[in-house]
Amino acid sequence: MWQKAKKWLLIGMSITSIFALAACGSNTSSQQGGVGLSEEEAVDSSLWKDKYPLQYASYLKNKEGGMTEFGGSDKVPKADTEPEIKKLFAGYGFSKDYNEDRGHVYAVEDVTSTKRLKPNTPATCMTCKSTQVPLFYKKLGEDGYYNTLFSDIAKQTKHSIGCSDCHDPKTNELRVTRPAFIEAMKRRGIDVTKATRQEMRSYVCGQCHVEYYFDKGKVLTFPWDNGFGVDDIEKYYDAKQGFKDWEHPDSKAPMRKVQHPEFEWWITGTHGTAGVACADCHMPYMRDASGEKYSSHWWTSPLKTLEQSCTKCHTQGTDWLKQKVHDIQSRTWELQTIASKEIAKAHDQIKLALATPGADQNLIAQAQRKVVQAQWRWDWIAAENSRGFHNPDMALNTLGKAILMAKETQELAQQAMAKGQKAQPVKPAQ
Amino acid sequence: MWQKAKKWLLIGMSITSIFALAACGSNTSSQQGGVGLSEEEAVDSSLWKDKYPLQYASYLKNKEGGMTEFGGSDKVPKADTEPEIKKLFAGYGFSKDYNEDRGHVYAVEDVTSTKRLKPNTPATCMTCKSTQVPLFYKKLGEDGYYNTLFSDIAKQTKHSIGCSDCHDPKTNELRVTRPAFIEAMKRRGIDVTKATRQEMRSYVCGQCHVEYYFDKGKVLTFPWDNGFGVDDIEKYYDAKQGFKDWEHPDSKAPMRKVQHPEFEWWITGTHGTAGVACADCHMPYMRDASGEKYSSHWWTSPLKTLEQSCTKCHTQGTDWLKQKVHDIQSRTWELQTIASKEIAKAHDQIKLALATPGADQNLIAQAQRKVVQAQWRWDWIAAENSRGFHNPDMALNTLGKAILMAKETQELAQQAMAKGQKAQPVKPAQ
Repeated sequence: MWQKAKKWLLIGMSITSIFALAACGSNTSSQQGGVGLSEEEAVDSSLWKDKYPLQYASYLKNKEGGMTEFGGSDKVPKADTEPEIKKLFAGYGFSKDYNEDRGHVYAVEDVTSTKRLKPNTPATCMTCKSTQVPLFYKKLGEDGYYNTLFSDIAKQTKHSIGCSDCHDPKTNELRVTRPAFIEAMKRRGIDVTKATRQEMRSYVCGQCHVEYYFDKGKVLTFPWDNGFGVDDIEKYYDAKQGFKDWEHPDSKAPMRKVQHPEFEWWITGTHGTAGVACADCHMPYMRDASGEKYSSHWWTSPLKTLEQSCTKCHTQGTDWLKQKVHDIQSRTWELQTIASKEIAKAHDQIKLALATPGADQNLIAQAQRKVVQAQWRWDWIAAENSRGFHNPDMALNTLGKAILMAKETQELAQQAMAKGQKAQPVKPAQ
Repeated sequence: MWQKAKKWLLIGMSITSIFALAACGSNTSSQQGGVGLSEEEAVDSSLWKDKYPLQYASYLKNKEGGMTEFGGSDKVPKADTEPEIKKLFAGYGFSKDYNEDRGHVYAVEDVTSTKRLKPNTPATCMTCKSTQVPLFYKKLGEDGYYNTLFSDIAKQTKHSIGCSDCHDPKTNELRVTRPAFIEAMKRRGIDVTKATRQEMRSYVCGQCHVEYYFDKGKVLTFPWDNGFGVDDIEKYYDAKQGFKDWEHPDSKAPMRKVQHPEFEWWITGTHGTAGVACADCHMPYMRDASGEKYSSHWWTSPLKTLEQSCTKCHTQGTDWLKQKVHDIQSRTWELQTIASKEIAKAHDQIKLALATPGADQNLIAQAQRKVVQAQWRWDWIAAENSRGFHNPDMALNTLGKAILMAKETQELAQQAMAKGQKAQPVKPAQ
C-alpha cells in the first residue's frame, strides 16, 4: 500500500512542479516559424499580419499616443515642460524642433518632416526609421549608403520601423539588422551572432536606442569603446580632439548633443545587470479574449501595462509600483530642471565674460570646457527616455554633478570678468 | 483505483504546499514564551542566555567590530574619511568627538566616555543606551527622569542595550519601551499598541534609530508631526522660531544637527514602503550547526549576511547584490563628499562677508539661512547609517539640492561682500 501511495505521492508532486514550470515558460512567437516572405516583401509589416494577427494588432497600437507623468508618445515639444531647452540648444537644430517621440509607426513621417533637416543631411538619419534600410545597405554598400543624401533616400522610403527590423522573415528568429551595433559590440569584444535569445530581446532594441554620432560627418558610430557610462563616452569624445556637434552662440562652447541612450542606461542599470531584457518590461506577454498568449508589440511605457510588465517579478501590487516609479521619476525631474536652469545661466555668464574687455581668457576657456561637461551630464538624463528609471542612482548622481559643474562654470566666468573689470580702469592711466 | 490515486495525488500536492508554506514561515523566538524574570532582573541580558542560547550568542557578536566599504562598527572618527566634518560642526560637540558607532553592547561605555558630554547634560542622553532606562522612567516619572543629570544617571547604569528593551520578559513578545516613539506615533494617528508583529519588527528599532531633539532642553521628542521626510522635519523646526542646536563660529548661522534617522529613511524608502521590516534584513533567520533556526541578534550591516538577509527575496545572487549596494553607496558617497566640501566653503564665505565692512546684511542673513538648509540636507545622509541605501533616490535627490544650496550660499555671501567692497571706497570721501 505504501509503495503505491508513494508512487502517487511522487506523481502528484511532479505534476505540481510541472504546473509551476509551465507557468514560468512561454509559447513565444519566434518558435512559430517564418512568414514566407522575401526580404523585399518583408519590409511591409502589414504582410506579417495573417501569420501574427495578435502581434500585428498590438503593433498598430503604436498609432495611439498618450502621455505618462514624465514623458509619452504625443508630439509635444520638450520645451513646453523644460523651457531652458531653447537656450541650451541655441544655434542647433534641437532648439527649433525637439518633441517627445511618437510611436514607431510614425518614424518615417516624423523624420522626413523635422525642421532639423538640412540640404546636406546624409542618409544616415534614416538608418533607424525604416525597415527598408537594410536593403539600402545591401544595394548601395555601407559606404554608398552613408554617402547618399537623406533627401534622396527619403524619396524611396515609405515603410516605418516594423517586423523585419528585428525578425528574420524566413524563421522569425530575432536578428540585428543595423551594422553600427554589431561593429560597436565587436569593439567591446562581444560577438552578437553568439547572443542568447534573452540577450537578443535587448539587442534588437539596442541597435537604435543608443547614443551615437556620425563619424566623418556621416558614418553611424556608437562610441562604446571605453564602456557604456557617461564618463566612458565623454572620454571617447574627448579623445577626438576638437570634436563638437555645434558651437553655442552665447558661450561659444563646443557642445555635444546626447541622443537617446536607453541601451546604455539599461545595460548599466538595475534591470539590465539583473538579466531582465528590454522586452521583458516593454513587450510583456498578453492574452487576447480567447486566452491566446502573445508578446505585445506596442512599444511604450510599462506604466501603461504595469500588471503584465512588472507584477510577474514585483509582487507588491500595482499601486506600490506606480508610486515607486513616480518617486524615482519626480526626484530625477526635480534635479534635471534645476540643472537645466543652472546650465542656461552658465551660458549667459560666459557670454557676459566674453563681452568684458580684459576678461581672463584662460578662465573663460575653463568655463567653456566646464559648461560642455555640465550639459553633457544633464543631457544624458534629459534625452534618455525613462526619466531616470532605467538607472536611478546613476541618473541622480550624474545630475548632482551637472548642477555642481554648472555652478562652477558660473564662478569661472565671474572670476574671468572680475579680472577684466579690475584690469579695465587701469588701462586709461597707462 | 482512480479515486484512491486522486486521494494520494491530492495529499501529495498538499504536502508540497505545506512544505512550501513551511519554508516561508518561521519558528520565531517570541512564540517560545518568557524567561521568567522580573523587570528588574530582565535588564541583565546574560540572564536570558539559558532560554535563548543561540540568540544570546549572536547578541555577543555585537562585540565584534568590522567595517564595510562605507561604514561599520569600529570606533573610527568620521572625519578620517570626510575631513570637512571638523569644519561643519565647528563650535559643537560633534567636532570634538564623532565616531562610527560600535555595537549595541558598548552603548553605555561609549556614551559615558564621549567628549560631547557637558556638566549639565541631562539624563535624556542615556535614554537609548541601557535596558535600565524604562525602570528609571518608572521610578522617577517622565519629568523626574528628564530633570536628572546625565552624570547622576550614569552612576546607576551598567547594562547596555539588550533583550528587555524590545522583549517582554513575561511573554517574550516584542514591545516598545521608550515613550518618545509612542507619543510621536500617536501624534501621527498611529496607535503602537495595535501594531502587527511585522510592524513591531521595525518599531522596536524605530524607538531609537531616529531624528530627535530635546524639547525644553531635556524632553526627548521625535519631530514627526508633519511627516517623516527631510522637508517635513525641516518645516517642523522652522515653526519653532529661533530653534537651533548651536551657532556656527564662522558663519554665525543657527545650525541644526541631524541624529541617526534610519527609521525615517526606511519608512519612506524602498523596503519600508514594501512592508519589509528592519529585522527582515538586519536580523535574518540563521541556523546553528545542528540546524536549529533562530533570529540573529547581531545588529550590523546586512552586507555581512547577504545570503541570509537578501537572497530570500532577491534571487540575482550575492555578487550582483553586493555590486548593487556598492553602486548605490559609492554614488551617494560621491555626492555627499562634494556637498560637505561646498558647505565648508559656504561657511568660510559667510565669515569673509561678515568681516567685510559695509557688506549687505540682508544678503548675509539669506546666506546664513541657506547654509542651514544645505547642511541639514547633507547631514540627513551623512548621519544616517546606510550611506543612502535605505532610500537611494531620495538620498541622491537630497544631496543634489544640498550642493545647489551650498553654492547659492557662496553666491549670496559674495554678493553681500561685493556690495561692501563697492561701498567701502566711497566712505573716505563722505
